Amino acid sequence: MIIALAGGVGGAKLANGLAAIMPPDKLLIVVNTGDDFEHLGLAISPDLDTVMYTLAGRANPELGWGLAGETWNFMAALELVGGETWFRLGDRDLATHLERTNRLGHGEALSDVTAHLCRRFGVAHHVAPMSDDPVRTLVHTRDGVLAFQDYFVRRRCEPMVTSIEFSGAATAKPTKAFTEALDSPELEAIVICPSNPLLSIGPILALPGVRARLASLPIPRIAVSPIIQGKAIRGPAAKMMRELGKEPSAVTVAEMYGDVVNAMVIEESDHAQMRNLTNLGLAGLPAHTVMKNPADQHQLAGTVLQFAQTLRVALDTV
Amino acid sequence: MIIALAGGVGGAKLANGLAAIMPPDKLLIVVNTGDDFEHLGLAISPDLDTVMYTLAGRANPELGWGLAGETWNFMAALELVGGETWFRLGDRDLATHLERTNRLGHGEALSDVTAHLCRRFGVAHHVAPMSDDPVRTLVHTRDGVLAFQDYFVRRRCEPMVTSIEFSGAATAKPTKAFTEALDSPELEAIVICPSNPLLSIGPILALPGVRARLASLPIPRIAVSPIIQGKAIRGPAAKMMRELGKEPSAVTVAEMYGDVVNAMVIEESDHAQMRNLTNLGLAGLPAHTVMKNPADQHQLAGTVLQFAQTLRVALDTV
Repeated sequence: MIIALAGGVGGAKLANGLAAIMPPDKLLIVVNTGDDFEHLGLAISPDLDTVMYTLAGRANPELGWGLAGETWNFMAALELVGGETWFRLGDRDLATHLERTNRLGHGEALSDVTAHLCRRFGVAHHVAPMSDDPVRTLVHTRDGVLAFQDYFVRRRCEPMVTSIEFSGAATAKPTKAFTEALDSPELEAIVICPSNPLLSIGPILALPGVRARLASLPIPRIAVSPIIQGKAIRGPAAKMMRELGKEPSAVTVAEMYGDVVNAMVIEESDHAQMRNLTNLGLAGLPAHTVMKNPADQHQLAGTVLQFAQTLRVALDTV
Repeated sequence: MIIALAGGVGGAKLANGLAAIMPPDKLLIVVNTGDDFEHLGLAISPDLDTVMYTLAGRANPELGWGLAGETWNFMAALELVGGETWFRLGDRDLATHLERTNRLGHGEALSDVTAHLCRRFGVAHHVAPMSDDPVRTLVHTRDGVLAFQDYFVRRRCEPMVTSIEFSGAATAKPTKAFTEALDSPELEAIVICPSNPLLSIGPILALPGVRARLASLPIPRIAVSPIIQGKAIRGPAAKMMRELGKEPSAVTVAEMYGDVVNAMVIEESDHAQMRNLTNLGLAGLPAHTVMKNPADQHQLAGTVLQFAQTLRVALDTV
């Protein structure tokens, strides 16, 4: 059994590749909820939805969020009545948020709501929020402290970041699915998908006990670098790293994860970084990590699983 | 200045006719909120919206509720995720409910929210809820007590009615706009639009002091009968009257209003009921009351205003 940690688009793509080649009961996808927020009275979970829509084959490839073939009549009408329109909500996507909000309001845990929504979207694999307790990413910037979506959507990641805070993380419990999988004797590998280490994986690792528990596992713990040739495929990861005084690179990602990981998959063109990974005591594997289509996702998932298998043998031998 | 009391479709049509021939500062449209309810976490005010959309020229003529040219992608998506779909919410209509809910949640009064929405929809005339306090119509039936929309939409008015309750009405205050207009020396007439006397006008008259205040006004107080030839144009008014042991007729409507009204406009084909109206001490006017288009609305509004003018002269002479 494998746990994949995922955030937004890149994470969802590798999770989708893993789901395509693994049986549902052998994969748990643990998703960041630090991006979650309340907007217009709705409980919005951007990363959970991105993973769910991607696994359902319903994700919007142009936008990188929301549903394919979406319409925007609600949004146009909301603008007419003077509502807040900086966070765009499609007519169909809105149903997900409203149903989630309604169920949470009736006392259901986010885990249960997520399981319900996944069932309805035909997602067979287990997608679990990292926690049922609210964790809210706050981005400290030169322009002040910004709620995540304020920074990410409204301010388009423009303000210069000074630090990142995961409000609520210190007292949030990892979900039952997550802790049970971490404690399972069946657990064979951890895969950290190519998501933003600061914003998408950071909140998961900030949950009490998670970082230590991961570091203690005598199994392959493989991160796929979201940084390729010093850049992120999408999103502010590279920009944020620079603002925080770090050179954006696969090695920097590895350093951020520290003892959480014992192996890294990096892009082939970053081959020169292999030596630095070795110096950090990490196993490294250059591979084709850019996922432009489902075939790329399957291929990378296969590469990662193969790498895990190889590492497992090596770990068992040691 | 004139106060029009209105509920759903028929009320909205006459209110629209009045708005078409009266300046904005001379007409206050007071709307039933007994049909209001919370659904999927949204504050829904069906009659306020029907009046607002009608005055904005945006009402859906086929449905009798909601917006013209509406789309239903949200609803289809909500069905997919297993949400409640018995109450249909269009993609554009939803923006009205969400913005209302959001503003009420921030402490705005329903009056203010209504004024805001009307401004945004380009409605120049003053549309006011009957009260800012919640009043909820409960329909007591042979099948038990049903919340209004449960009875009206989900059960399609099928259960046999035994009585009607306006929960909250005893302690709800009429809105400031309503009480100020009732007390204004400028007030020249009351028009009760052809809405369901039991469900649409009943809640307004159930507010503390309203019935007595109306009955005391030395001005024309004219109801337009929603019952024509023993039938309602739409809705359950006639069926409910029968179930409550009353013969559906313009005279029965007049009896329900009692001393609130001193005049009735009835359909020409109900001319035979004029004698009964006279016996009740009411002035009667047979007229063309079926409103199939805006021209009908303007014509009926003109007829009612002309009737009010005639009655005012007569009242002043007495």
